[in-house]
Amino acid sequence: MVNYKLHYFNVGGRGELIRHIFAQAGVEYEDYRIDLKQQWPQLKSNYPNGQLPVLEVDGKILPQSYAIGRFLAKKFGLAGKDDWEAAKADMYIYGLEDVLRKMFPLIGALVLGKGDKEEELAKIKPDILEPFLVKYEQYLKDNGGQYFVGKELTWADIAIADFIDRLTWIDAHILDGHSSLNEFVHRIHNLPNINKHIEARPKMPF
Amino acid sequence: MVNYKLHYFNVGGRGELIRHIFAQAGVEYEDYRIDLKQQWPQLKSNYPNGQLPVLEVDGKILPQSYAIGRFLAKKFGLAGKDDWEAAKADMYIYGLEDVLRKMFPLIGALVLGKGDKEEELAKIKPDILEPFLVKYEQYLKDNGGQYFVGKELTWADIAIADFIDRLTWIDAHILDGHSSLNEFVHRIHNLPNINKHIEARPKMPF
Ligand SMILES: N[C@@H](CCC(=O)N[C@@H](CS)C(=O)NCC(=O)O)C(=O)O
Ligand SMILES: N[C@@H](CCC(=O)N[C@@H](CS)C(=O)NCC(=O)O)C(=O)O
Repeated sequence: MVNYKLHYFNVGGRGELIRHIFAQAGVEYEDYRIDLKQQWPQLKSNYPNGQLPVLEVDGKILPQSYAIGRFLAKKFGLAGKDDWEAAKADMYIYGLEDVLRKMFPLIGALVLGKGDKEEELAKIKPDILEPFLVKYEQYLKDNGGQYFVGKELTWADIAIADFIDRLTWIDAHILDGHSSLNEFVHRIHNLPNINKHIEARPKMPF
Repeated sequence: MVNYKLHYFNVGGRGELIRHIFAQAGVEYEDYRIDLKQQWPQLKSNYPNGQLPVLEVDGKILPQSYAIGRFLAKKFGLAGKDDWEAAKADMYIYGLEDVLRKMFPLIGALVLGKGDKEEELAKIKPDILEPFLVKYEQYLKDNGGQYFVGKELTWADIAIADFIDRLTWIDAHILDGHSSLNEFVHRIHNLPNINKHIEARPKMPF
């Protein structure tokens, strides 16, 4: 049996997708959570990029959240049925990363208490978040409404559901007018293994 | 035969890696280059994210540079010999993206003439570029000095060589003290197909 240990902070951030993939696959791993204020300053220099997440696989180290996510998705049969599907899943996931990068000031307000949450949200809701939701809703519809890629669950669905769910933590109204995304998030999060993970996880700011 | 058309600007940016992969594989594609000032404002809304690169594969559309790169690398046998090697390649490539994101002001100066090149370079050379080179030089050494991943060429090597080569366009001294990276870049760029591409390509700012 392979021994997995995920090193990340006690937030969703770029680690939560990895936790969801483990959950969905029903695979055991150590969910090692580092406190950003208390522990991280001492630990940072131990990690290859001075950043997290990092996955240990039988003691071998893999940094970079999406390298980790894709590796596990592949192993656990969540990366699409062929190269084209794998590429579509990648494409959707990079799209999330593009949005995430634009959310840094907002996330800073949420996680580090830097700046004003409502102000930062107002700056990106109309031009970044809303167009993103419209676009992804259309993609889902174009693919038949069940999954984003092909006819089976992929890590793109897991990533998108997790990401959008966490947007609703920031703004409870963000899915108003996007009922099919709302239905999608609930459907994915009601998958038994993912649901179990969500019920058990600690409360996190994002 | 598959019909490929790459839509990108007339720069290296996030398109050049894709061109290098096609070159190394010896696969024909249409290298459609859009002028950012003259043509792009009219064309932008035609593209799914309003951004480039986009790859057409027999008329099907794939946005996101790394989704494209990985898809082609996989098809052309440049994505490592197993899932772990594929993940290592991904990891190195995401590391480049992290550096690239920090180079935006510098690239803005180079490509769009916004701000002062030397000033922007001075801001990131000591804390971003130099540590990046030190780290990647060590990775190369740790893997035996030939390739970054395993014992054969992967798209990580192609990406790293292209990226570092383009750093030397900005700062001819950037590889001073990094002779093994310098040797690496030259070795990869002397691969016959890549060399042919480099000789034939138009001059670009980055
Ligand atoms: N491209 C990397 C980015 C990693 C990253 O930005 N990590 C942040 C948290 S999401 C971090 O470690 N921050 C703490 C620090 O930089 O000291 C990835 O996707 O894993
Ligand atoms: N995450 C995307 C980013 C794409 C991107 O930022 N494209 C830029 C050029 S590198 C672009 O299209 N800029 C023009 C615009 O946004 O109008 C990728 O990796 O492909």
